[in-house]
Amino acid sequence: MKSLKIGVCGVGNVGGAVLENLTNTPDIVVSNGGVQIEITQVGARKGKSAVPYDLDVVTDLMEVAKNPTIDVFVELIGGCDLAKDLIEHAIGNGKNIVTANKALIATHGDELFKLAKEHKVQIGFEASVAGGTPVIKALREGLVANEVKWFAGILNGTTNFILSKMSEDKSSFDDALKEAQELGLAETDPTMDIDGTDAAQKASILSALAFNTPFDFSFVSYGGIDQVSPEDIAYAYQLGYSIKHIAYGSLDNGQVNVSAFPTFVPKDQLLSQVGQQMNALEIFCESIGSTVYYGPGAGPKPTASAVIADLVDLSNGGWPESENKKNQNTLIKECKQQFSRYFKLDVKNEAGAIAKVSSLFADENVSIEALIQNEIKDNSPNENFVPVVIISGVLTDTEAGRLQENLEAMTEIAGPVKQFRIHNAL
Amino acid sequence: MKSLKIGVCGVGNVGGAVLENLTNTPDIVVSNGGVQIEITQVGARKGKSAVPYDLDVVTDLMEVAKNPTIDVFVELIGGCDLAKDLIEHAIGNGKNIVTANKALIATHGDELFKLAKEHKVQIGFEASVAGGTPVIKALREGLVANEVKWFAGILNGTTNFILSKMSEDKSSFDDALKEAQELGLAETDPTMDIDGTDAAQKASILSALAFNTPFDFSFVSYGGIDQVSPEDIAYAYQLGYSIKHIAYGSLDNGQVNVSAFPTFVPKDQLLSQVGQQMNALEIFCESIGSTVYYGPGAGPKPTASAVIADLVDLSNGGWPESENKKNQNTLIKECKQQFSRYFKLDVKNEAGAIAKVSSLFADENVSIEALIQNEIKDNSPNENFVPVVIISGVLTDTEAGRLQENLEAMTEIAGPVKQFRIHNAL
Repeated sequence: MKSLKIGVCGVGNVGGAVLENLTNTPDIVVSNGGVQIEITQVGARKGKSAVPYDLDVVTDLMEVAKNPTIDVFVELIGGCDLAKDLIEHAIGNGKNIVTANKALIATHGDELFKLAKEHKVQIGFEASVAGGTPVIKALREGLVANEVKWFAGILNGTTNFILSKMSEDKSSFDDALKEAQELGLAETDPTMDIDGTDAAQKASILSALAFNTPFDFSFVSYGGIDQVSPEDIAYAYQLGYSIKHIAYGSLDNGQVNVSAFPTFVPKDQLLSQVGQQMNALEIFCESIGSTVYYGPGAGPKPTASAVIADLVDLSNGGWPESENKKNQNTLIKECKQQFSRYFKLDVKNEAGAIAKVSSLFADENVSIEALIQNEIKDNSPNENFVPVVIISGVLTDTEAGRLQENLEAMTEIAGPVKQFRIHNAL
Repeated sequence: MKSLKIGVCGVGNVGGAVLENLTNTPDIVVSNGGVQIEITQVGARKGKSAVPYDLDVVTDLMEVAKNPTIDVFVELIGGCDLAKDLIEHAIGNGKNIVTANKALIATHGDELFKLAKEHKVQIGFEASVAGGTPVIKALREGLVANEVKWFAGILNGTTNFILSKMSEDKSSFDDALKEAQELGLAETDPTMDIDGTDAAQKASILSALAFNTPFDFSFVSYGGIDQVSPEDIAYAYQLGYSIKHIAYGSLDNGQVNVSAFPTFVPKDQLLSQVGQQMNALEIFCESIGSTVYYGPGAGPKPTASAVIADLVDLSNGGWPESENKKNQNTLIKECKQQFSRYFKLDVKNEAGAIAKVSSLFADENVSIEALIQNEIKDNSPNENFVPVVIISGVLTDTEAGRLQENLEAMTEIAGPVKQFRIHNAL
């Protein structure tokens, strides 16, 4: 039987689950994957007390990266600095790499893959996107015969949980976040989830695979779910949508745009039905249409499942890179993709105000597909202004931004104008 | 660059799409997959006129199977007899095989895989289930670290199209079938789709992968969608369900049951949202929960996409079989899985009849979770009997069958009693 000797750095939630799976149920991988995976060494800064198994544990993580007897270095400590240093040393020592570190791949992927190529080793990173759902395998291998046109994904479990709670239980953002934290679904500092960074990093990794773009996270435009109010969710419901945080990547004439924003998703789309902390990725290819991959996007066991799948793949030769990759597509910051939009404005409660707002849309050559002006309640906090919601025709981000500014400049409109994309899948 | 010489037998819809993809856009596979796939020979019984490309076309298909210069024999003629003969010859000549032939794999898989093992070649069959959606890859590779507990799938596009049309457009079964035929989604003789055979064959292939059972289609219990009436669909809607044709496989203490029946799916489940001719497969593993794979389950281009993905995999070494597979699980005919059920009965319109029906459920120790007896309309065809729908607690197929028989034996009930499973996913 094939065997694989691995060194694992990091024994937190994910590292712990990898050790648990391989120690307690090694027969599954032997039977399904035909490989005996041996944990040769474990790097744990807290030492042996952090590892409840009879394994060789060292506190100096670099010792694992430099261990000459391992075949694969498994990096599960997270963060960019030390993780990068360890991986570079392991690559330099001729080791294959498996990592769950999306921040590292999204930021330093090009550098690391170049180094890996020089040393004729490979890097597995299935666990970096969508946890236990094998989306990288689907993209790279399952859809190998197709050109991807676009993808749209719910890639952050924490924010999907919060939006689902706000939608289903009418929770406030703060209560939903607190519940996510109590359930261990959100970090103590949830900034990277809430502001969209995490989803944007994952989208940039998917873009590199789908469109052959550099791993360059700086080109991703993104926004967070902190912009979404219970009022927006109620309007979305009324109009037949869910609000989801959707990461997009799209290819248009050799230009690729990657972005991640809260987005209205029509109720009849599968993505709108993705609840709880689940992830889902829709991949559209011209020739075959959409395929969708749904599952647990995070959590120790799903992530460990992806790490171990990478190890089995490596024992079978891994993912040989094409030597004839076509020229890279160009990442551009300005998204040329057109979306219908949700606009939410507070309009002066006087005759002719709505007409003036409508005229502005007409002047900008933007159609109004739907308009909601609910009856004012007596206890309205600002009775001089009424909330108005408009679903517009299709606009690029730039066009939408200009329209938003022009609306905000009108004397008939109070305060900021809010604007979200509407998912228009085929 | 790697290269792969293939011989393709069959130039119908799927074969044609494979030739088209590889001839018109060879750069995609070269760039994504790093392999030059060369169509060395094509077997087409109608000869060169059936192949609009400048290729070596022969009418004797066996010539392709025996061609010493090819690396892979691609079987796309369908059916069991000739296809099996060709594949056996090709394996005997040391060729790897790629096929889209679910009937062949579901019926003769064991024999063929044994022969392939003896000759140290491999058989790719991603295209045999769920067309362009890489479910076999997900099951075999992506989820390699997990034990599958059950799967549930919409595996036949034709029947899903018909059920969707009956549900959304209130079409009759006959009109929906006619529309499917006009759109090329159903065969002229649609028996294998309608009676559930096609889905059952696919389910038996998934079972072999998920549970390590023999490829033995004879153990699959199944029924078709011809049992589903517009009335059932209306009741399902009223009760918060869709009716889908669901293929199940489940593992319980080393015993595996595979079945495929029309099934009520709660509206909040992803599977209930799968419309048109789409397929979807939910795979449940204890450790990570459910993952779902959705996409086009048939059609020339999606199926060709799966065939080509198999070819690229073969160029990278294929899918080495574990030499240490654990003992096969046992396929059993009697399903021990428990489902809530939908019962539809015509009950005598007289005092005490419903009480007697309820008593029978109580005698069998089956709970009644919901009961609908709609008001009788004046123009009821049989005013002596009223339709009653009962949602029961959980029952095995055997228990449900017994209850059904006992209900039919009651003088208070007219005609046959209808019964469908309810999908109770976790």
